[in-house]
Amino acid sequence: MTDHTTSYRPVPGVRLSAAAAGIRYQGRDDLALMALPAGARCAAVFTRNAFCAAPVLVAKRHLAIASPRYLLINSGNANAGTGEQGLTDAAASCAALAALADCRAEEVLPFSTGVIGENMPLSRLETALPTALKRLREDAWPDAARAIMTTDTVPKLVTRHFTLAGRTAVITSMAKGAGMIRPDMATMLAFLATDLAVDQALLRDCLRDAVETSFNAITIDGDTSTNDACVLAAAGTLGNEPLDDPGSSGFAAFRAAVETVCRELATAIVRDGEGATKLVRIRVEAARDAAEARRVADTIAHSPLIKTALFAADPNWGRILAAVGRADVDRLDIAAVRIQLGDLCIVSRGGRNPDYTEAAGQAVMKEEEIEIRVALGRGEAATEVLTCDLSYDYVRINAEYRT
Amino acid sequence: MTDHTTSYRPVPGVRLSAAAAGIRYQGRDDLALMALPAGARCAAVFTRNAFCAAPVLVAKRHLAIASPRYLLINSGNANAGTGEQGLTDAAASCAALAALADCRAEEVLPFSTGVIGENMPLSRLETALPTALKRLREDAWPDAARAIMTTDTVPKLVTRHFTLAGRTAVITSMAKGAGMIRPDMATMLAFLATDLAVDQALLRDCLRDAVETSFNAITIDGDTSTNDACVLAAAGTLGNEPLDDPGSSGFAAFRAAVETVCRELATAIVRDGEGATKLVRIRVEAARDAAEARRVADTIAHSPLIKTALFAADPNWGRILAAVGRADVDRLDIAAVRIQLGDLCIVSRGGRNPDYTEAAGQAVMKEEEIEIRVALGRGEAATEVLTCDLSYDYVRINAEYRT
Repeated sequence: MTDHTTSYRPVPGVRLSAAAAGIRYQGRDDLALMALPAGARCAAVFTRNAFCAAPVLVAKRHLAIASPRYLLINSGNANAGTGEQGLTDAAASCAALAALADCRAEEVLPFSTGVIGENMPLSRLETALPTALKRLREDAWPDAARAIMTTDTVPKLVTRHFTLAGRTAVITSMAKGAGMIRPDMATMLAFLATDLAVDQALLRDCLRDAVETSFNAITIDGDTSTNDACVLAAAGTLGNEPLDDPGSSGFAAFRAAVETVCRELATAIVRDGEGATKLVRIRVEAARDAAEARRVADTIAHSPLIKTALFAADPNWGRILAAVGRADVDRLDIAAVRIQLGDLCIVSRGGRNPDYTEAAGQAVMKEEEIEIRVALGRGEAATEVLTCDLSYDYVRINAEYRT
Repeated sequence: MTDHTTSYRPVPGVRLSAAAAGIRYQGRDDLALMALPAGARCAAVFTRNAFCAAPVLVAKRHLAIASPRYLLINSGNANAGTGEQGLTDAAASCAALAALADCRAEEVLPFSTGVIGENMPLSRLETALPTALKRLREDAWPDAARAIMTTDTVPKLVTRHFTLAGRTAVITSMAKGAGMIRPDMATMLAFLATDLAVDQALLRDCLRDAVETSFNAITIDGDTSTNDACVLAAAGTLGNEPLDDPGSSGFAAFRAAVETVCRELATAIVRDGEGATKLVRIRVEAARDAAEARRVADTIAHSPLIKTALFAADPNWGRILAAVGRADVDRLDIAAVRIQLGDLCIVSRGGRNPDYTEAAGQAVMKEEEIEIRVALGRGEAATEVLTCDLSYDYVRINAEYRT
């Protein structure tokens, strides 16, 4: 996988740093800071897991009170499943940074990723804060992207720029996540920043929509982490009039850039999924509604039988057909269903397409990127989900003891 | 696994046979017949997969028209995903047997298990029918149980007897299924027969209820086959007054025996799940309703992360907690949730139980049979689901080419 950390653009006014706190890992940075200028606006979305981690609860509370000035991120310990002590620790880490940085504790948002169920070694984290503050620089995105990694094999950094009323605006972003495959390495964090000024409500809508078609449309194994979070910060350093008209071309350009960045990060996460050897795009179309399309896509994406067949490059179309058939589509007319591997039609009229040959199927399945397309023949709704295959390495990685 | 085929009891009046048709396998029987006496009553339940196989459709049609005299079962080819030709072939196989056995085609129910998407080699199947008819005997259950196997490593035969009004009634049954892990070996078939006379409606209710807590409460990988079927035949050869009072002690004894037989067969299927090294019982209790309990149990049973941890005997309780948290329980109060491994409490009050030790967790996880118990603290509903772990062998078996 390409390391994109060399070709990014910093976001004026947004400073980052990394430091080694020794929370779990030795000999590498495991703490990252992002500092936002005064007046920056932030939107965030969080995991829907009922057992959400302590930093998620604290970040939500702080977001409701104040505009964030610092994002404080650690790897190695998720501070999840830690009960009251976890909440105390997450709040204390914010207070410690606030005291050093001369801001309010509510202006700090905490994020944690790592092992579930162990208390946060708070003093180690706090010891690293002065260094992290001292190192804050606009061009430290690669350092921060590396510091938040857990089982990731590469840092994930995506940048986009576009012109708005004669000015060049930038969005830069980092994410970690080896594909939701390890909720004990609880799991996905993504941070996006732009120099644009954007109205708070529009920022929130924009992030919510972009997440829906990117991070919420990828799955490795169907497991949702206790710590997932995605933050979009608008620094307002570009000097533009704040984007506040959802119908404006400027907002449309911004929205498109956010969506592109989110999709690229999401794709990078799936590609980096531990054990993954294939990137699989599942497109369900001609569904009655979006929920139905998503149900079929998820059923395919979560089928261990399909995922093992993908690993083996085996065009075992009976497994895809069986998954579509059990996806709980009300009164599905199987004669109207069409299933394709890319452009190759494998199932039509309720059975094997007469023109399909095993050789043609195998040729498609040997590719590193595979598209499974299902047309239900019921309506106009469509959806896309990204996933990967299920390999020996998936079992190996997840069956290893937590040593 | 124990081979139980030596200790079963035949069912008076119910004759079976096996023969080699060479449908896919060589050097073994792949065709089984079960012949029922005139006046026998049959109930059956079938897969809910929309892409259900041709024999399922034909069996349903025949059941609606006549009382079955013959069950015609083949392994090696599922006759699924075969469109119109599949329906023609399934009906033709019934007609061929009917002609030889001097009955109506509608008195034959067809069942197929094996590879999806290939047309049935009808002439091979027909060639074996005279031998199969000639061999019909009351004590051929073990032969028939072997003939219907696909990836099963052992035949599955369960028998029970009980006393009813001074007579000894018997229920004997066979099933095949290596745990729903191969819908291309599409998948579970179960056949139960008793010498009792039972009212048709009661027979149907009894089967439906027993299936709910047995075959419908096991899962290997969440995949539902296109061919699943379960038949309960009441031969009426015992000479009892037909059981027609749902409140009678006789019917209660019969119902209990059917439930026991179904559960034992279901357990045998999970144990024989390819790649399975552990039998895992997931019990969810104190749920608001049965659907909620089942949702939580299924989320745990289908989590690849939990299943790989079970394979590794790793008491990775964070994965169980995360699965409960994402099971879409409306306003779950995590402080009320209790999670146990057998009698060992691992999670209470939203986090790790203070008394829990990793050593104690590992001791439980090393057992071959493991119980995961989740109390949601919301009500009185409970459910149980049986599953197995996810091992290297699961990937190996399902990633192999279909050669």
